Amino acid sequence: MGILIKNVSILTQNSRREILRDVDILTEGNRIEKIGKNVRERAEFKIDGRGKLAVPGLVNTHSHVAMTLFRGYADDMRFWEAWPERIWPKEKKLKAEHVYWGAMLGCMEMIRSGTTCFMDNYFFMEEVAKAVKEIGIRANLAYGMIDLDDAGKRKKELEIGEGFVKDFNGKADGRITCSFSPHAPYTCSRELLLKSKELAEKHDVLLQIHVSETRKEVFDSLKKFGKRPVEYLDSIGFLGRRVMAAHCVWITKREVRMLGEKGTRVSYNPVSNMMLASGGVAPIPQMLESKICITFGTDGAVSNNSLNMLETMKVGALLQKAHHWDARVLNAQQAVDFATCNGAAALCMNSGSIVEGKLSDMSLMELKSPNLLPENNLVSNLVYSSNPSNISDMIIDGKLVMENRKILTIDEEKVFENVEKVAEKLTRD
Amino acid sequence: MGILIKNVSILTQNSRREILRDVDILTEGNRIEKIGKNVRERAEFKIDGRGKLAVPGLVNTHSHVAMTLFRGYADDMRFWEAWPERIWPKEKKLKAEHVYWGAMLGCMEMIRSGTTCFMDNYFFMEEVAKAVKEIGIRANLAYGMIDLDDAGKRKKELEIGEGFVKDFNGKADGRITCSFSPHAPYTCSRELLLKSKELAEKHDVLLQIHVSETRKEVFDSLKKFGKRPVEYLDSIGFLGRRVMAAHCVWITKREVRMLGEKGTRVSYNPVSNMMLASGGVAPIPQMLESKICITFGTDGAVSNNSLNMLETMKVGALLQKAHHWDARVLNAQQAVDFATCNGAAALCMNSGSIVEGKLSDMSLMELKSPNLLPENNLVSNLVYSSNPSNISDMIIDGKLVMENRKILTIDEEKVFENVEKVAEKLTRD
Repeated sequence: MGILIKNVSILTQNSRREILRDVDILTEGNRIEKIGKNVRERAEFKIDGRGKLAVPGLVNTHSHVAMTLFRGYADDMRFWEAWPERIWPKEKKLKAEHVYWGAMLGCMEMIRSGTTCFMDNYFFMEEVAKAVKEIGIRANLAYGMIDLDDAGKRKKELEIGEGFVKDFNGKADGRITCSFSPHAPYTCSRELLLKSKELAEKHDVLLQIHVSETRKEVFDSLKKFGKRPVEYLDSIGFLGRRVMAAHCVWITKREVRMLGEKGTRVSYNPVSNMMLASGGVAPIPQMLESKICITFGTDGAVSNNSLNMLETMKVGALLQKAHHWDARVLNAQQAVDFATCNGAAALCMNSGSIVEGKLSDMSLMELKSPNLLPENNLVSNLVYSSNPSNISDMIIDGKLVMENRKILTIDEEKVFENVEKVAEKLTRD
Repeated sequence: MGILIKNVSILTQNSRREILRDVDILTEGNRIEKIGKNVRERAEFKIDGRGKLAVPGLVNTHSHVAMTLFRGYADDMRFWEAWPERIWPKEKKLKAEHVYWGAMLGCMEMIRSGTTCFMDNYFFMEEVAKAVKEIGIRANLAYGMIDLDDAGKRKKELEIGEGFVKDFNGKADGRITCSFSPHAPYTCSRELLLKSKELAEKHDVLLQIHVSETRKEVFDSLKKFGKRPVEYLDSIGFLGRRVMAAHCVWITKREVRMLGEKGTRVSYNPVSNMMLASGGVAPIPQMLESKICITFGTDGAVSNNSLNMLETMKVGALLQKAHHWDARVLNAQQAVDFATCNGAAALCMNSGSIVEGKLSDMSLMELKSPNLLPENNLVSNLVYSSNPSNISDMIIDGKLVMENRKILTIDEEKVFENVEKVAEKLTRD
């Protein structure tokens, strides 16, 4: 009784990476019930899929979604000037309600650009959860913890972090899952890192952390611990399959192997790394060799400045080709894998492909678009040629969230108005 | 009586780089007649500009537009394998009609992504001119000449090249201008280069050439001429203000100074350079120091694979920041300058800004979009956050070419059908 999409093409991302033509997709509840020719079951919504491609929902594994509020507010500046001078003073002024509107705006942007799920860490996360619940997207959320070696602060941070997991994990019909997010090895004590891990195991949830995003971190880590960041995290027993390590751009081959051996997942954030001029480039070929589950993240809007995973796939591939002087590095199929099935696997979700029994998370792309023709190579067109103008509809958790470019679940105009009001207060006084 | 846009915001790109709010734009013929509050003149078309931003038409200074036909056909391959194995054999099969449909598709893609003018070189250029005339875009076109030191071939190439200039320069009410395009120093004899220059002066038109796109070219040039490509072009007297040099990624500081001293214009093609893993990066800071007029190009769809100048601006800035480990390099305002006023200046057009008396070439962007809010910095949002979904309308040469995302001048469906038919024949047998 869900949604029936008739005569659609499908980028299945199944194990054989099949592309199906002119088939029907029936969703039932939040699952894909049936894929085949001439599906005759009745459905509540019927979508004409002719000329459209069903693409598995993209999974954005690193963001700070509410930072859309600061979009364009600290660009073309050095990281160590932009954050202390522009962002941190404004973040201090952030109120719960601001985060709600910023998160709502970011969710809208992600839905319009094909993303059905994101992993996020920031603060006032109950407001992000509220936005996620209302708009109908899927998310893994964590309160971002920092203790700077202060035991009092640590206790408070862990309380907030665990409180959030207790209150929100599994909420919104399971669309919201939670995680623990100690910010980074250079802002979190060993105790906070290990306690986070212990709590993640206790609640059976994931961990998010920033790792080796800048060269400075590596020097500081060597000075403080006599070890590079990944070596340090490994030495204290932090790494493992629950961990999503964001960035990993300044890491050695030895560190890549450490990540691989412990099953740690990596969120590759090419646009952010380039925008902030981090200098390092995630060693994707070495990570592939070490069988690391590589995924894509946009990072927050201050360091990107969009939350567009289609762009991230392309720039991610371009950066690898340019860096390695080899056009074969990170090919289109690998980029799609990172953004779909790898993202889903890393977040332990039964999605990432359009296959019977999987969660019904997918976008519809209009193939008859000037930038997507001819169809010499559909996967290549998706990665290297598509943009958000091609996405017409979005189904998340079996519900039609966007139809013909209109998000159905919320009042778009109201979000725009409130975001402008909040930004007016935050950044223009 | 032209077009009246009421209550619009304007990214003027005038000498003070002003942004105007809530003003009216009146176009008359192919010019911008009046900009101001409460313009009362009557107009044939009236556009409600509320919530929209008028952006000067983007100028794409390097493309092979008909190569959209091969989009996705030679990706993730090494340049020296992709072209000989995939592209050249197919180009041999190209017929005039194919080029027409490929060009039409590429023009549609450019219009949808904010480009009002492009500089192009390929073959069957009369077909490209036909598409340009029909769809209503502006273009500088050249037949791409290669002689490989063969005098007979040279004579023929120059005949075709000059014939094209004679037949098409100034056509389509001046929307089409022409140029001479000797392909590159490594495919063209000294005689062809110098004769091209002589003819360009005779006909008072521009020159297009590929320069130092790959490292191999530099080695080959050193071997053959004892000089690097720019040094060689300078030594034979080829450089000058008429020349648009595409790529320039493997050039020394000395070569940058040579380009600057001779007033040669550069087309920076970041996406293509990354996609083909050229390795080199155009030395933009040095070029700025040498006061070179830097512009942006997409290159053909085989090496990009889109013709999206919004993306090119962003990737162009990202690549410079990443390469120089400095987020301040190539800021948003500079990127917009490259894509608008510099492009127009390089092509000797009276456009590139929204100012009374200039050609009426502009797009309208919907500012109330999830990816363009809040408006902390409009220029930054344009460069780092916009995508083609934000562009609703396009005015080129004073005519409304696209209204509410529909191109008015041609039958879009017919183009799609024919492109698929052509690609079917070309790439799938």
